[in-house]
Amino acid sequence: MPAIPAPGNAVVAQSGGPTAVINQSLVGVVEGLRTHGRGSIGSIFGARHGVRGMVDEIFVDLTSTPPDLLDAVAATPSAALGSSRDKPDAAYCERILAALKKKSIRYFFYIGGNDSSDTCRIVSEMAESTKYELKAIHVPKTIDNDLMMNDHTPGYASAARYVAKAFMGDNLDNASLPGIKINVVMGRHAGFMTAAAALGKQREDDGPHLVYLPEVPFDLDRVSAEVEAVYKKLKRCLIAVSEGVQDRDGTPLLAKLSPAGSEKDAHGNVRLSGTGALGDALAAELSKRLTPAGGKSPRTRADTLGYPQRCYPDASPIDQHEARLVARFAARAACEGATNGSIAIQRIAGPGSARPDQPYAVEFKRVELKEVAAKTRHMPAEFIAGTSGVTPAFCEWLKPLVGEMPRVGRL
Amino acid sequence: MPAIPAPGNAVVAQSGGPTAVINQSLVGVVEGLRTHGRGSIGSIFGARHGVRGMVDEIFVDLTSTPPDLLDAVAATPSAALGSSRDKPDAAYCERILAALKKKSIRYFFYIGGNDSSDTCRIVSEMAESTKYELKAIHVPKTIDNDLMMNDHTPGYASAARYVAKAFMGDNLDNASLPGIKINVVMGRHAGFMTAAAALGKQREDDGPHLVYLPEVPFDLDRVSAEVEAVYKKLKRCLIAVSEGVQDRDGTPLLAKLSPAGSEKDAHGNVRLSGTGALGDALAAELSKRLTPAGGKSPRTRADTLGYPQRCYPDASPIDQHEARLVARFAARAACEGATNGSIAIQRIAGPGSARPDQPYAVEFKRVELKEVAAKTRHMPAEFIAGTSGVTPAFCEWLKPLVGEMPRVGRL
Repeated sequence: MPAIPAPGNAVVAQSGGPTAVINQSLVGVVEGLRTHGRGSIGSIFGARHGVRGMVDEIFVDLTSTPPDLLDAVAATPSAALGSSRDKPDAAYCERILAALKKKSIRYFFYIGGNDSSDTCRIVSEMAESTKYELKAIHVPKTIDNDLMMNDHTPGYASAARYVAKAFMGDNLDNASLPGIKINVVMGRHAGFMTAAAALGKQREDDGPHLVYLPEVPFDLDRVSAEVEAVYKKLKRCLIAVSEGVQDRDGTPLLAKLSPAGSEKDAHGNVRLSGTGALGDALAAELSKRLTPAGGKSPRTRADTLGYPQRCYPDASPIDQHEARLVARFAARAACEGATNGSIAIQRIAGPGSARPDQPYAVEFKRVELKEVAAKTRHMPAEFIAGTSGVTPAFCEWLKPLVGEMPRVGRL
Repeated sequence: MPAIPAPGNAVVAQSGGPTAVINQSLVGVVEGLRTHGRGSIGSIFGARHGVRGMVDEIFVDLTSTPPDLLDAVAATPSAALGSSRDKPDAAYCERILAALKKKSIRYFFYIGGNDSSDTCRIVSEMAESTKYELKAIHVPKTIDNDLMMNDHTPGYASAARYVAKAFMGDNLDNASLPGIKINVVMGRHAGFMTAAAALGKQREDDGPHLVYLPEVPFDLDRVSAEVEAVYKKLKRCLIAVSEGVQDRDGTPLLAKLSPAGSEKDAHGNVRLSGTGALGDALAAELSKRLTPAGGKSPRTRADTLGYPQRCYPDASPIDQHEARLVARFAARAACEGATNGSIAIQRIAGPGSARPDQPYAVEFKRVELKEVAAKTRHMPAEFIAGTSGVTPAFCEWLKPLVGEMPRVGRL
């Protein structure tokens, strides 16, 4: 690979649902370029609202942003550059490449999920086929934790921390005013977010008593029987349910329970976030099924944990740290010669690794874009317990990621 | 008042929706009785699930619970004794009194809101009329902050902190992926909780851009115009709306938008918590009204902040401190001779007090039960700005209560 004509410029952009640490990654890229791109990189641009800002040519110059401002931005939730839900096709990618050429950009860092790595892949291939020297690096980010090749993704640990803490509090709430309580958790295809609810448990009879993941077909008759069994035993039942649960045929639960209320998004998917419809419909259904003939309905409530899951300002310390480092590693990889790729976080020690008895440790690794692009990682079988739970192995794996949890005192 | 025959026993109970600091109050009562009731008080009982545990005679003996366990319980959200939604009438109160007599209980501490102070009042009057020496003290608790005579109530500051932090994060989320976002906040009659959303604002164009309190009649035409104006200017709009908003005639918004979906609770009120129905209905209505003829609907989402508002394990430090102290004060007042009463928190220095330039300070005061019982405090006029906002005076008043807020960095 011939050297890139100096000074090539660099661009960094953020994509998809924001997270509590996506700005750590933004700042990590800038820091990495400043450290490792000295002499070979001209300006460092941030594109506003992801690929949208590239094609519309709306950039922020980050070349000389002071370190203390960068630190403040890094510690702030959500995407400081703005984000985008655009999923570029080939024509859109042509426009991205044209914009990069126009700005003499030779380094393209895209922080996002599997769609973003696919965008990197397409743009990188187009650049190659037109002989434009470009480095296209995908920096991982998603609260869903559904990227292949990764032990976990930046953003997940903070969102999992929120879910675990919300369930810890809600379990105590439910114990004080008993009833059936449903909390709907984000994650359309992968159950890692919903599974995190289990980390709020400290005692055998703590909730969540039932955890419903998108990986396990959701059968209303079976679920209803499971809820009834817990309710009979404990006089209460706290349920974690993924927004993405679906039946054996792949029909989303919401579409089944409330065909009228299930709105489709631009990609033709039933809209799951930003609405309480699923929780409400499931609460109504369970209440109906669990009401004895002529008897009183059990107190049934539903909350949809909603957007606070991704941007509540209480990030996991290790997530903040890793999001920054993985982005610096991406910048360094590009400066040291990588043409394209995605950076993955792999666990080399600690629970769930090959060295489970050692303290938690990770390493970063460049992987091929096509290994990540447009693929989805699911909860592995060893993390799923039966039809309505997670295994101790999952909780052990998750613990180092979320940071310290509050201590619970009981009478 | 003649001295109570020694050793009289004491009971403490928790009532209504739990909070992040209601256990601080429980522990404060126990500590206060141990300190000030030495020699005059026999056993200290906790009643399980409020008045329900009294009439069912389900008690926990707290006389010798170790201080380190008490500390752990105090720091734990929700009601460690369990709570109750029972609203005792005269017949129920007779049963409470009979249970107190049976256990030789001469000190009754009830931690709760205005309904609980009314229970204290009725039981106290019944005891007096049957010449049973009883001290009945109400210890304030409610996230709604709607108790008369109080500057603020234990539980409010922590819930307000959660709301402010959730809005701070969600404002950044909404800025990164612009659209109309509605967050429904707890508080059926008083707007203090919803108003707390404004504390998340740090810059002029930050959200919440519109704040809808139950104190201001909710007019859909006017609200729709206000949302449209913000959306035209900023291309986004973050809205805080109280679950309790109602129109000029007192019809709850949910009953207006979705008559079929508005379930009634045991007291005949439309059920507002534990459902996303209001947010979803309002989102659908605004989306419909703001869609230009033949044009694209604005991206509109709703979250209902739900139960994490009251039990998310991230209490305000000052709330924890005051909840403990006000309960110790209640125990001391009883031990030193008060027959009945409610303890109020009054601000004697700091923003919103008679000495606004001094650092924040409060004092505790015994007030008559009838001054608090079954009454509701609302947001004062000087805290409400027009039809859709709060005043700087409100934010200044709130700031010392919620503790330090995260710092936001922006590019």
